[in-house]
Order: sequence, then structure tokens, then C-alpha cells
Amino acid sequence: MASDRGYFITLEGCEGSGKSTQLALLNDYFKSNNKGVVFTREPGGTPISEDIRKIILDVKNLDMTDETEALLYASARAQHISEKILPAVNAGKIVICDRYIDSSFAYQAYARGLGFDFVSGINAFAIKNCMPDLTIFYDITPREAFLRKGGADEGDRLEQSGIAFHERVYGGYIALTEKFPDRIVKIDARKSKEEIFDETVGILKRRGIII
Amino acid sequence: MASDRGYFITLEGCEGSGKSTQLALLNDYFKSNNKGVVFTREPGGTPISEDIRKIILDVKNLDMTDETEALLYASARAQHISEKILPAVNAGKIVICDRYIDSSFAYQAYARGLGFDFVSGINAFAIKNCMPDLTIFYDITPREAFLRKGGADEGDRLEQSGIAFHERVYGGYIALTEKFPDRIVKIDARKSKEEIFDETVGILKRRGIII
Repeated sequence: MASDRGYFITLEGCEGSGKSTQLALLNDYFKSNNKGVVFTREPGGTPISEDIRKIILDVKNLDMTDETEALLYASARAQHISEKILPAVNAGKIVICDRYIDSSFAYQAYARGLGFDFVSGINAFAIKNCMPDLTIFYDITPREAFLRKGGADEGDRLEQSGIAFHERVYGGYIALTEKFPDRIVKIDARKSKEEIFDETVGILKRRGIII
Repeated sequence: MASDRGYFITLEGCEGSGKSTQLALLNDYFKSNNKGVVFTREPGGTPISEDIRKIILDVKNLDMTDETEALLYASARAQHISEKILPAVNAGKIVICDRYIDSSFAYQAYARGLGFDFVSGINAFAIKNCMPDLTIFYDITPREAFLRKGGADEGDRLEQSGIAFHERVYGGYIALTEKFPDRIVKIDARKSKEEIFDETVGILKRRGIII
């Protein structure tokens, strides 16, 4: 890696994994740091990508096919990587992105059943080979995450089809950690938020991203 | 082809090829015909695809990358084929679509230089192998089409980069007619609109689509 290039880091996890809490803690941490850090998110991150995000998340679009959804995520990502992520990384900044291609793999390829080759194929064009330097996966099953939030009446609150889908997402993430063992680092997200944050910072230090 | 399946026909051509005129004449023609005919267009054709169309055509989105644009066209097409075109064809209807995958090949693959494999790859997922039964290409060069419209001061009205782009689109279409000689039928679009319409109807009759 050229010395003046920055780092591209992505955070991944299921719903309720505590990823948002860690992002907020990282935001605070880097406020007192001189090095330029760019926080961004997917889908979104640029005006065009945020417009695409609105279509993806619009509750009126219930008829959206899985293929349409996957292609929309890829189109938003193509814009995001080209307009925001790559310029910042090439300018020496650390970019921390809330979800990236692994979310497409876990949600579209594995959980929706579109397959790894399909999602990999459309994203290869979108991202121009720009994979993250590091991906942190906050590892907790959807069931455990739900129970941690005080969900005693799981059957009422999280319908069976819902939890089955999120368990498939989790299974997809586990498959990804095995497929990309060098890039994806797991953190046990059943620990306290302070312990998880210490481990997050520890990984960034071990990788030489921060000192 | 099963006897109860309809037909999927696409119309293609450069700007100013007279395609819209032929669509209007076909619309009139089929009004006096009992057989169900569905007219549709790309990008668009369904509410979700029309929302995507708005992003593609929004003049504020000048920063859109070629990859984002190609993926957005493919996502709109995925929804269009699944929600509107395939159900109508499977119900025995004739679907006539103003532009389809060949526009992506001509504009994105050839003229923008993304390459046939890129555009073919992302669209293969989108269209689920649903290629048109017949594509009519209205064959006139952008320069001839412009002059036909009375453009004497071409240099003023159509800037050089503009015409160069549209000439590349035309070159893409010619390459496509050679690549798919059975599916794509050329009509010389320098003729009168009446002659062109007679040829259009003649092709539909020869293919057994109308009697």
C-alpha cells in the first residue's frame, strides 16, 4: 500500500448487533484525533446514492423484486465508491463505512437466495475492485441480540418469517468470515459496549491504521 | 413457443430515428384490433421503474458515473420485466416496448465504452433470459436524422462531442444487428413514415405475430 493512501474500513453486523453504538463511539474517538476520518453509510453517502436509498427503503415499494433491489444497492454503491470513498482514501483519509458489499452478500446473496456469484458479479462492476482494507463483523445472532434488548415475548414481536430471514443473514456473515479470513475480523458482540469498543480500537491499532 | 404465449417486441433506434412516430402509428393500428397489445417504455413502465427513471434523467445528477447509470437501467429493467412484461406475454399478449436491452448495449456498452460483457453481465441477472422475440431497429444515422429535421447549422445545434457520442450509439446498433441477425430486423428509416410503417406491419405479419 502506498504510504500516502488512507484506509477503507467497513463495519458489518445483523440488526441489533450494536454496530451503531460502536460507530458513535468511533465518531467521538476520532473527534479528538488529528487524522482525517470520513464516516459514511450504505446505501447512501452521496446525493445520488441517497436518492436511490429512498427508493430501496420506500414502504410503498413492496413489489420490488430481489433482483431490482440488489441492482439498486449496487448502483448506489458504484456512485458512493467513485464519488466519495475512493477520493477520500486516495487523499490519505480513513473512511469508515456503515455496511458495504458484505451486507449485499449476507442479505441478498445468502438470505434472499440470489447466490454469491450473482451478487459478486454485479458488484464487481460497481466497486472497481475496491474492497475494504478491513471489515469488522460484530458477531451476535439475531436471537441473542433480540433477547439482549429485553425481548421476552419473541413470538409476538419478531414474527417467525422475520427471525428466519435474519438468521439466514447471520449465516451469510459467518460464511463470509470463512471466505475472507484476512479481511474480516470478528468481534464477540455479546460483550459490553466498552469491551467491544476496546477490541475495535485494538484491531485498528494492530493493523497500523491508528497508533 | 407455446401457443398461448404472446410476443415481446422491442423498438430501437437513435435519437430522431422516427421511432416515436412509428409507436404512435402502431398504437392507432392496434386500437382497431381485438388482440390485447401492451405498449410500454424503458426506462420506466412500472411505478418503481419510473422512480428509477427520474433519478437517471434528473438534470441535477450530472455527477452520475457510467457504472451507476448502467446499473440503474438494469434495476429498472429487472422490475419492468418481472412486474409487467413477462406477466403480459405469459397471458398471451403482444408487448411492444420502446427501447430495451439493446439501448443499454448501444448507449452504455458501445457509446460509453463500458463494454458488451459488462452490460451483458448485469442485464443477464436483470432480465432472467427474457430477450425480445423480435427487435425492430429504425436505421438512420444521427447526422441524417438531424438533417432531415431541418438542421442546417449542425455545428451550432449539435455540438461535436454530442454528435460523436450519437454516432458511437449508431455504430453500436449496427454491431448489434450483426451480433443478433435473427432477432433484430433493420428498417431503412430514411424512407417516408408511411413506407416505414408498412414495413413494420409487414415484419409483424411475416413473423406470424399479426395476421
